[in-house]
Amino acid sequence: MQNKTAKIAFIGLGVMGYPMAGHLARAGYGVCVYNRTTSKAAAWVEEYQGTYANTPAEAAQDADLVFICVGNDEDVRQVTLGTEGVLSTLGAGGVLIDHSTVSAQLAQELAVACSEQGLDFIDAPVSGGQQGAQNGVLTIMCGAETSAFERVQSVMQTYARAVTLMGPAGSGQLTKMVNQICIAGLVQGLAEGLHFAQHAGLDAHKVMQVISQGAAGSWQMQNRHATMIASEYEHGFAVDWMRKDLNICLQAARQLDIALPVTALVDQFYAEVQNIGGGRWDTSSLLKRLQHLQTPQKS
Amino acid sequence: MQNKTAKIAFIGLGVMGYPMAGHLARAGYGVCVYNRTTSKAAAWVEEYQGTYANTPAEAAQDADLVFICVGNDEDVRQVTLGTEGVLSTLGAGGVLIDHSTVSAQLAQELAVACSEQGLDFIDAPVSGGQQGAQNGVLTIMCGAETSAFERVQSVMQTYARAVTLMGPAGSGQLTKMVNQICIAGLVQGLAEGLHFAQHAGLDAHKVMQVISQGAAGSWQMQNRHATMIASEYEHGFAVDWMRKDLNICLQAARQLDIALPVTALVDQFYAEVQNIGGGRWDTSSLLKRLQHLQTPQKS
Amino acid sequence: MQNKTAKIAFIGLGVMGYPMAGHLARAGYGVCVYNRTTSKAAAWVEEYQGTYANTPAEAAQDADLVFICVGNDEDVRQVTLGTEGVLSTLGAGGVLIDHSTVSAQLAQELAVACSEQGLDFIDAPVSGGQQGAQNGVLTIMCGAETSAFERVQSVMQTYARAVTLMGPAGSGQLTKMVNQICIAGLVQGLAEGLHFAQHAGLDAHKVMQVISQGAAGSWQMQNRHATMIASEYEHGFAVDWMRKDLNICLQAARQLDIALPVTALVDQFYAEVQNIGGGRWDTSSLLKRLQHLQTPQKS
Amino acid sequence: MQNKTAKIAFIGLGVMGYPMAGHLARAGYGVCVYNRTTSKAAAWVEEYQGTYANTPAEAAQDADLVFICVGNDEDVRQVTLGTEGVLSTLGAGGVLIDHSTVSAQLAQELAVACSEQGLDFIDAPVSGGQQGAQNGVLTIMCGAETSAFERVQSVMQTYARAVTLMGPAGSGQLTKMVNQICIAGLVQGLAEGLHFAQHAGLDAHKVMQVISQGAAGSWQMQNRHATMIASEYEHGFAVDWMRKDLNICLQAARQLDIALPVTALVDQFYAEVQNIGGGRWDTSSLLKRLQHLQTPQKS
Ligand SMILES: NC(=O)C1=CN([C@@H]2O[C@H](COP(=O)(O)OP(=O)(O)OC[C@H]3O[C@@H](n4cnc5c(N)ncnc54)[C@H](OP(=O)(O)O)[C@@H]3O)[C@@H](O)[C@H]2O)C=CC1
Ligand SMILES: NC(=O)C1=CN([C@@H]2O[C@H](COP(=O)(O)OP(=O)(O)OC[C@H]3O[C@@H](n4cnc5c(N)ncnc54)[C@H](OP(=O)(O)O)[C@@H]3O)[C@@H](O)[C@H]2O)C=CC1
Ligand SMILES: NC(=O)C1=CN([C@@H]2O[C@H](COP(=O)(O)OP(=O)(O)OC[C@H]3O[C@@H](n4cnc5c(N)ncnc54)[C@H](OP(=O)(O)O)[C@@H]3O)[C@@H](O)[C@H]2O)C=CC1
Repeated sequence: MQNKTAKIAFIGLGVMGYPMAGHLARAGYGVCVYNRTTSKAAAWVEEYQGTYANTPAEAAQDADLVFICVGNDEDVRQVTLGTEGVLSTLGAGGVLIDHSTVSAQLAQELAVACSEQGLDFIDAPVSGGQQGAQNGVLTIMCGAETSAFERVQSVMQTYARAVTLMGPAGSGQLTKMVNQICIAGLVQGLAEGLHFAQHAGLDAHKVMQVISQGAAGSWQMQNRHATMIASEYEHGFAVDWMRKDLNICLQAARQLDIALPVTALVDQFYAEVQNIGGGRWDTSSLLKRLQHLQTPQKS
Repeated sequence: MQNKTAKIAFIGLGVMGYPMAGHLARAGYGVCVYNRTTSKAAAWVEEYQGTYANTPAEAAQDADLVFICVGNDEDVRQVTLGTEGVLSTLGAGGVLIDHSTVSAQLAQELAVACSEQGLDFIDAPVSGGQQGAQNGVLTIMCGAETSAFERVQSVMQTYARAVTLMGPAGSGQLTKMVNQICIAGLVQGLAEGLHFAQHAGLDAHKVMQVISQGAAGSWQMQNRHATMIASEYEHGFAVDWMRKDLNICLQAARQLDIALPVTALVDQFYAEVQNIGGGRWDTSSLLKRLQHLQTPQKS
Repeated sequence: MQNKTAKIAFIGLGVMGYPMAGHLARAGYGVCVYNRTTSKAAAWVEEYQGTYANTPAEAAQDADLVFICVGNDEDVRQVTLGTEGVLSTLGAGGVLIDHSTVSAQLAQELAVACSEQGLDFIDAPVSGGQQGAQNGVLTIMCGAETSAFERVQSVMQTYARAVTLMGPAGSGQLTKMVNQICIAGLVQGLAEGLHFAQHAGLDAHKVMQVISQGAAGSWQMQNRHATMIASEYEHGFAVDWMRKDLNICLQAARQLDIALPVTALVDQFYAEVQNIGGGRWDTSSLLKRLQHLQTPQKS
Repeated sequence: MQNKTAKIAFIGLGVMGYPMAGHLARAGYGVCVYNRTTSKAAAWVEEYQGTYANTPAEAAQDADLVFICVGNDEDVRQVTLGTEGVLSTLGAGGVLIDHSTVSAQLAQELAVACSEQGLDFIDAPVSGGQQGAQNGVLTIMCGAETSAFERVQSVMQTYARAVTLMGPAGSGQLTKMVNQICIAGLVQGLAEGLHFAQHAGLDAHKVMQVISQGAAGSWQMQNRHATMIASEYEHGFAVDWMRKDLNICLQAARQLDIALPVTALVDQFYAEVQNIGGGRWDTSSLLKRLQHLQTPQKS
């Protein structure tokens, strides 16, 4: 696959998929894209050359590798198993790679469906956000057979800082879930800390500088405290996406028979952020929720 | 104070105070220590030279600077305002520095008491743990008048990586509270993430390596995941101390009229860690609590 | 329908369905039952006369009214929409009544499916437990068109204390959800109260007697405190069922865009009850979870 | 004490104390009241005859029994142990009865102080609210020696439905704590249930009627659902008082080494009710908090 003769289909040109597909094109691969809203596909072709198809099936027709980066389980089902999905055309020997964050169950289901057609499947959710996608420095967590992984690893490195095989199908998704679980409690803790700092009359910026090197330090503290203090949330990873992901985590925990009390609670707090209008705000907007509750009720 | 002619009293030779007082002695200051349990004071004198006194008052008799590093509010009250406390002897012009983690209210009370006696007061709680104290790389958060701070800053640098003035009396303690609040949610999130990883059949070490550079990353993840996976908790910052600190935070929040829902919940989870025998375990033992709840009830 | 000439099919002879179908037979209706495990159907026919069928479809063949009382969404789907489900045979003019606790979405789906076949549908989840079913004093919460409700109300009164129309299809399920949501927080509160009483050295029985008439009083306190104190949980409404129900509630809340923080948290605590072996214990076993966390870890 | 020759001092004429002292006067006891704000004492004397004193000490001078019904620990300390407190004058053989809700620790401290002066002490917190006090139907939970309890039981029955000895000094307070702990989880559960009902498009009144007889039923559901639905909270037991009580409960749990996770969380939610302006609202206003979080943020 190193010779760049591999033909690639890329399904889903959203915030993440658009630049990822772009990196592949820039690297010299022949890329045929598909996007539900065709105007975005047309814009992409304009920017990166390549071609676009009118259905996922059409895009996958001549492809060796098919990448997907759409929304939730339902969306992935449509573009893969649906009547015009990629599995209706992708030829034996091909590889299907799903970059969407979805359930491990769906990943396992797709692995079986692919296997039955002589295809390889890789669940490959990413972290690193819009910036990571644009700068080509994503972290990719893969669930696959080793042989499949090795066939595509170097292709994914086109837009990644790290591409790691975590285990069999579903393991990529499960790893991404661990990531989201860790974030939920962490960000609420950070929000409570900043909330306290602001009401205690401290210089919150200074507090963050002092404590961010120590035991309370985190990526979120480093990269989000300034925007939190400034009450800016129009960037980053959206609360709506986070709720989708936490629902996946909580349903998986249900199947694994384990309890995630703070994750479940913070998920509800994110529902409250959605309610005050923050569905598209960054996940760090948990601070805004605390502040909203400081506002006296109007009579 | 740079001339090392300052005479120092150091009250409390526990896990933290013992090496801190040692750094001062090594740096050339004349140090007179006091410890409730005299054997520790004797051992310290053996190791670092200097002298020891039989009461806090006696230690402070000839001192220019008095440092305290004991336990909780009650303890600090005893060694300062008690009948044999340092305030009964410390001469005008002296400075009292409290390194214990206690309430901001007590800090303010001591600032007033000192001021009435012509003394300066600095609340100066630390972070960095036993290792930080031993290696002289603590972070110190100070609440004081600027002039007082400037008199003692360089002395504290003897055992610190960073010494910062956060604001008037109490501001050091309030900053330390922000630190502890941030940690509570963060560590529970990390524990839930690892708990999930272990039950999902993932290689937890590998998961931590992959995600620790990104948005879920934290000091705790970097420095504690290996011991958590190994179920080793006989090190670090003890749950008993954490509960003391979180009680201080929650009482302060009560006075500030703010809500800290996850901090309050995790404080209760730490109560459960204490109950299963973990009062002296590191705060990362929240994972142990989750695991304990996986053990079937014996009939 | 008062003439008892109505022919009835009853699908699902579990803890609830068995006695409910029995009440119908006793009241003079011709009842044909179906149960997945045939031995239970045979035992029922032995006890109550009537007949049994080998598939849901067969049972519904000649029926005017079909009652269902099985497990979760998936189970209801199978016995209604499945290849051998009741909708494949139930004749136009018939009524399908579902007593299972399932999602409001499924209720609405079944209402549409029924309507397309000229059938009426009623979602009719119950409360009152095994005892209520046996004694014929259930509370039934119905979602249906008024005309459909009126056709079957008196039949359901055979085993109910109260049968109420709550609104259109799905309203019965939504009402049942409110019931379960109220219980979750309430029982955890009661468990914490008893846990406190026991550790405070109080006579817990006496405490319950004194406070149960006032503002802390509840059905659960009246009917469960004695067994909780005695640590007896082999009765009542099982934790496994409760988790199924709370998942339905939480998914519904997600669609309604509302937050249920304590319900979500207690749901996680029920996961912990399952883990310590209590999947079949009564919901009041939340106390057992608190007690389990008082047991020191073995080294 | 039945002969009504007992001379009584009553300290604290608030919402509760005013009518309680009134019942004693009406019953034929000679009552001397004290209230910090003298105008209320004057009004009371106007309404019920009797006399008023200018200090607690003065009121207790000639008393056989001294009743207290003030605010928190600090307040009780002042009127008992303070320079002008009742313990400075109450003659040997007297009984001190504290109706305030305070810590069990203070109760034990006062029992010791009384015992040293040859006095009996009873901690006797009440439940039943303003209405219960006015109608003389309070529930009183006592901690005392049996002999002391028997001396005063019939006097307290003047304004009580039930007066029960729970155990030695402090047991009354501990019982009241159990009451408050049970209420916290229960009311949040009820609030979440109503919140859900309202957003699900159900007739919330009807839902409450249907479910209030069953396993979800409670005094709060019976007596508060209508005002909750009407968003009326200017009555009942104030959130500010509840927070004081829950702090007492949580500090007691800390000393007893037990965890009360939902109580701690709901206490924080009450902080949020205070913040949106509801310090004086009834405890059922947890619903208002949920509703406040449905209001979009203004930009
Ligand atoms: N944004 C981020 O920071 C991160 C996102 N992710 C995950 O990556 C995935 C994509 O996220 P992102 O790019 O931000 O999302 P966007 O909403 O920006 O884009 C979603 C893309 O999927 C397409 N799509 C959605 N549903 C369907 C469907 N049913 N059929 C066909 N196409 C569909 C959309 O098409 P159309 O243009 O027509 O709407 C669009 O191209 C998600 O799973 C997300 O959780 C992971 C890490 C970070
Ligand atoms: N350990 C850690 O990692 C960190 C601790 N801290 C804070 O630093 C302070 C000290 O902690 P640490 O050194 O670990 O505690 P230790 O328990 O190791 O030592 C406590 C010291 O205080 C003395 N002491 C306690 N109570 C009294 C009293 N009433 N009168 C006189 N002396 C008393 C003890 O004397 P004796 O030897 O006689 O018992 C001992 O010297 C605490 O406030 C803690 O919260 C802050 C950051 C990190
Ligand atoms: N138990 C209680 O106290 C209460 C229960 N409920 C609700 O009532 C319903 C029934 O509960 P309960 O009677 O206790 O449950 P049980 O487990 O005792 O019985 C379940 C019944 O459903 C049948 N069943 C389950 N799945 C299927 C399937 N896929 N196909 C065919 N039959 C199936 C079972 O058949 P088989 O015998 O072959 O296993 C059995 O007859 C549930 O929705 C529950 O939530 C409501 C209120 C109270």
